[in-house]
This record gives sequence, structure tokens and C-alpha cells, in this order.
Amino acid sequence: MSTAPFILAASGRRSSHTPVWFMRQAGRSLPEYRAIRGEGSILDAIKAPDRAAELTLQPVRRYGVDAAVLYSDIIVPAHAVGFGIDVSPGTGPVCDAPLRTADDLRRLRPFEPAADAPYVLRAVDMLVAELPESVPLLAFAGAPFTVASYLIEGRPSRTYEHTKQLMHSNPTLWHQLMERLVQHAVASIGGQLDHGARAFQLFDSWAGTLSRADYDTYVLPHSTAVFAALATRHPDIPGIHFGIGCDHLLESMLSAGPKVLGLDWRTPIGDARRRMGASLVVQGNLDPALVLAGAEVALMATDAVLDDNGCLDGERHPGHIFNLGHGVPPNADPDVLQAIVDRVKERTAR
Amino acid sequence: MSTAPFILAASGRRSSHTPVWFMRQAGRSLPEYRAIRGEGSILDAIKAPDRAAELTLQPVRRYGVDAAVLYSDIIVPAHAVGFGIDVSPGTGPVCDAPLRTADDLRRLRPFEPAADAPYVLRAVDMLVAELPESVPLLAFAGAPFTVASYLIEGRPSRTYEHTKQLMHSNPTLWHQLMERLVQHAVASIGGQLDHGARAFQLFDSWAGTLSRADYDTYVLPHSTAVFAALATRHPDIPGIHFGIGCDHLLESMLSAGPKVLGLDWRTPIGDARRRMGASLVVQGNLDPALVLAGAEVALMATDAVLDDNGCLDGERHPGHIFNLGHGVPPNADPDVLQAIVDRVKERTAR
Repeated sequence: MSTAPFILAASGRRSSHTPVWFMRQAGRSLPEYRAIRGEGSILDAIKAPDRAAELTLQPVRRYGVDAAVLYSDIIVPAHAVGFGIDVSPGTGPVCDAPLRTADDLRRLRPFEPAADAPYVLRAVDMLVAELPESVPLLAFAGAPFTVASYLIEGRPSRTYEHTKQLMHSNPTLWHQLMERLVQHAVASIGGQLDHGARAFQLFDSWAGTLSRADYDTYVLPHSTAVFAALATRHPDIPGIHFGIGCDHLLESMLSAGPKVLGLDWRTPIGDARRRMGASLVVQGNLDPALVLAGAEVALMATDAVLDDNGCLDGERHPGHIFNLGHGVPPNADPDVLQAIVDRVKERTAR
Repeated sequence: MSTAPFILAASGRRSSHTPVWFMRQAGRSLPEYRAIRGEGSILDAIKAPDRAAELTLQPVRRYGVDAAVLYSDIIVPAHAVGFGIDVSPGTGPVCDAPLRTADDLRRLRPFEPAADAPYVLRAVDMLVAELPESVPLLAFAGAPFTVASYLIEGRPSRTYEHTKQLMHSNPTLWHQLMERLVQHAVASIGGQLDHGARAFQLFDSWAGTLSRADYDTYVLPHSTAVFAALATRHPDIPGIHFGIGCDHLLESMLSAGPKVLGLDWRTPIGDARRRMGASLVVQGNLDPALVLAGAEVALMATDAVLDDNGCLDGERHPGHIFNLGHGVPPNADPDVLQAIVDRVKERTAR
């Protein structure tokens, strides 16, 4: 039985302290990160397993976080099968020919990790050999909706108009696309777990743009399929379901089957447990913008999150994994991040 | 006593049909709009009262909507007092010198509509003379938080990091800034109401980035002050409180004192009334992205909104003003917007 704080907390069991980690790319504000990351697409850095493994380890070494999240990107599977998607530095994922028709779907064949992205599995192998038992490696993939939104919009969007148009005007094609992306997510995470990753996170970062009715009809069955397939393949491995601005969708996202529900700063932990049960295991939820407001503000806000996790029973709830409510800001001060990690560990140590 | 459907619905009284209007800039996808709008900053179009009045009237004439929303912009007051903010076409509001210190606050003196922006009041005068009793003119202003976010960030933001940093690290300056912006909003809307506008909307478009605790501490007292001052000055004039992605803040936004609560598509009307009372008067909430999905999808979604407004008592609730959950997309098909207006009127006529 593992005594890793992350693994214990993910199943609601007491651990030595509340585990803390930062979402990808956790190390991106570090000088040692910039020294080896290089210019150009993140996909190039991911394709060099030594470099991806090192970039994964840097924040673990520097901050002493309780989990290592693979240095990778949610568009790796679609890129690897030759759909025609890349990451443009400063912009994000871009497609020259976005997915709009059934013909475009042919460019999205099933993803075979060992054949299509062996570099990811090599990085996982290196990391599993390197990491101590106390620091699990986390696999991740994009949820079908969020990946679909990149493929359909062709570039970052605030309105998701093409995605919503396809969803509503051609539900048959929509569901075919989502089924394909379920396969991608399951194969991607499953491959990483087969190679020794010990937990995973499904990123549905942009699902919050949907009404709950649309989420339940067009998205939930597919995200549920991802969690179900992974639970069959790896029944003891905990999964986290994460989105931003998803307060209105949380009950549905929980029903998809994760062991851990990711919260952003808009949803107090106490409110989430009042809504979904006192034993709810949550991850979150410091506003990353506050990391940029200096150590004093960031630590006050860290304390507020820890207090929030004690608010139902007056003492620390075991089912809490501390994190930001989104990724680490690229301009975050490493000293502030370190102070946050130290504060979480100190205040929750038993 | 007015029989204008908008005015009746805003106070929860039965009217001939559910009133419908589109948010600013309602006419921006019309060919007649593009013919006279001109290139360059929207502020130039606003400064020509004839043109602003005509741009306000175009969607009323074309679509037969039940309210005319003044062609203007929420940064007019800050621009007019010489803070140093403009609207860059294709980008949005930009400041060369964003507000970060107490010194910067000196550039934001009180706003005097008649002296600082007489062109707005002239456009209001023209519109009030032109519009029939059945179509009220709506005044509007930006809520203190959303205007502050533009002044502080200096350009559109997804993270609002400078705004949150100032709020948390210098609450004294934050509240001074908000008080100044309360004066701006009250003077701006108040001036338009003095000249004959018959309702108003306070746009807190970006408040949804805040947790409810931060909203309640740093924003709510100031938005409450806006509604309170306007209620004293114009006790019978209904106000709408609007934000995007604010599902988690709605109870607080209602407590600020509006007669009407704006909803985006994330919050079902039925849910809002279950949470805040069966007599709640709401405005919304068709997803504007669905206007772009063709008439068939847009009309199905329109029907769903109308059904949602009947869902608590099985017949049409009188306290509903139909609108999109955000502004009209610039690439919206005028025929689809027309079909939506016609559908709302036909299905709700008694």
C-alpha cells in the first residue's frame, strides 16, 4: 500500500500532509526550464524524451511537490496521427485545415501510442525509473470536448462558435468525432499508465462554455466512456476531472466517474462538498492570478484555500489535493510558488 | 401607465408578448450599419450624435425589437475625462498608461455628462424624440469592476492578473478607484435617464472571473451603490444587472438591487427562479454562438429558452425579457436574427 500523500488523498485517506502539485507546465517559469526548453513548438520539446523527462522533473526537484505531471500537451495524439495540428508559440494550437466535415474526420485515425508517439512512452519510462515512491507520475490527456474544440475552431477561441455549430447542426458527425477522441484519450492515458504512471488527469479546460443541457447531451457520455474504459483497464488508478469556469457543470463532471473533482477558484471547496457530498475528494483551487500578486497575497490566499478545506468539520479534510485552479502563469515568481508549497506542507503536517 | 412590453416585463407584469431586444451593438451585422459606421474607433462614431442615433435605430427598424439600446461604449466616461483610453478596432479597449498607482487615479476625475460627453445626451434627445412609446430607449454603463479591469489591464485580458493584484495588494486604492467608477456609472446612466431613457443596463461583463468571496468584498458594495443612487434619482426606472459566466455570482448580483437579472446561456431560467424565487425577472439567454449555426438550430434554441421560461408554472412567466446571453456576433446573419424576433413574438403573443 502506497504512503504517497497524493495517492492517499486521491482516495480520501489521511496522509502526512495535504499533497500539492502544479499543473502543466509546472516548471515553465523556472530559469532552468528556459535554459533547456528551447524556442519553437512545445511539440518539439515533447518529442525529445530526455528533455521532456527533465522538464517534468525540474519542478519536483525545485519545489518538492507531491506529484510529477508529464511534460506533454493535449494535442499530442491528434498531432501524432497526422491530423494537421501544431502549437504556435504565443498563440496556442492551430490547424491549417480545421475539422468541419465528415471528410475531415478521416484525418483523425485511431491513436496507437507505441507506434505514433513512442517518445511519450520513453519519457514515462525514464520518469518512472527516476521518481521516488512518494512522488507519483501523473498521466494526462485532453477530454474529447476540449480537443474537439481545438480541431474544429482551428485556433484559440472565446466563442467556440464553430464547435457549437457542428454540435447542433450535425450531431451525427459530432458524436463520431467524440467517439474517435474517446479512443485517443483512453489510448493516450492508458499507454502512460501501462508504463507506470500512477494517476491521471482529464483536461476539459473549455467545457465551461457549454450549458449543462448541452454538456449532458453532447459531452458527458463521451467523458464517461473515457473514465469507464480506464477504470476497467486500471481499476485502482485515480483519475481527476478538470475544467475552468465549470461551476455550473460540476455535478455532471463528477457523474462522469472521476475519483477526484478539479475545482477552479470560483467554487469554494466547502460549497462543492455541500452540493456533492461531504466525502467529495477535490483538487484546487488557488487563483493563479494571485500567485502574481506577491508572496503576502499568495500566502493569504493559500491559507484561505486550506481553511476552506477544513470548513465542514473544523479540521483538515483528507480528500484534498492542493493546486492552482489553472496552469502556472509563465511569469510566476518561483520564490512565491516555493512559499506556497512550503505553506501547504507546514500547515497541514500531522 | 406604459403598455410597452419591455417596461411591463421588467416589473414582472403581463404584456402583449415577451419583449425581445439585442445587446449592443445590436445592428453591427447589418449592411446598413456597415454603410455608415465608418472605420476607426467606435468612439468617433459615438461622438457624432446623428450617426449614433441612426446606428441605435437601425436594429429597431429592421427587426422590430422592443427596446433601443443607445449606440455607445462602456469606456466613454473614462475616455471623456481624459484618462487615456481608446478602443482599438479588432482588439478592444487599450490604455497607453494603465492604472496601477494612486498617481494614475488622478487621471480619472469625476465625469460630468453635459460637459464631458454632450454628444451622448444629444443622441439621447434625438432618440427620445423619434422612438414610439412602445419602444423604450435603454441607457447603459459599465459596472465599476469591468471598467476598472480595462483601466488596469490596459488591454483585453483572460486572466485579469493586474486587476486581481491591485485588488488584493492595495485594497485602499482599489476601493478609491471603485468609488470613482461608481460616480462615473451613476452620472453616465443618470444623465441618459434625465434626458428620457426609460430603463438601463449595468454591464459587469467580466465579473465572472472572480470568486464569490472576492466579488462580495471588492465589487458588490460598489455595484450596489450604483443601483441605490439611480433608484433614488429615478425610482420607477428598471435596471438590469448583466454579466457573462456569472452563474456562481447571481445571488450576489441580484442583491445589488436590479429589477432584472441578466442570465447567460449557462444558467437555465428555471434554475435561476428555483434559486432566487419564482417571481424573479430575468433577461436572456440564447447562446449567441447558436445564432451562427443557421436558422433551424437558432430557432430550436429560441424555443428552448421560451420553454424554459414556462417551465415552473407551465405557461409563460411574465417576468422575462428575451435576449442573447451576450452581444450580437458581428458575423450574425440578419435573417436569422429576424427569425428569432419573429418567433419570440409569435409564440408568446396572447
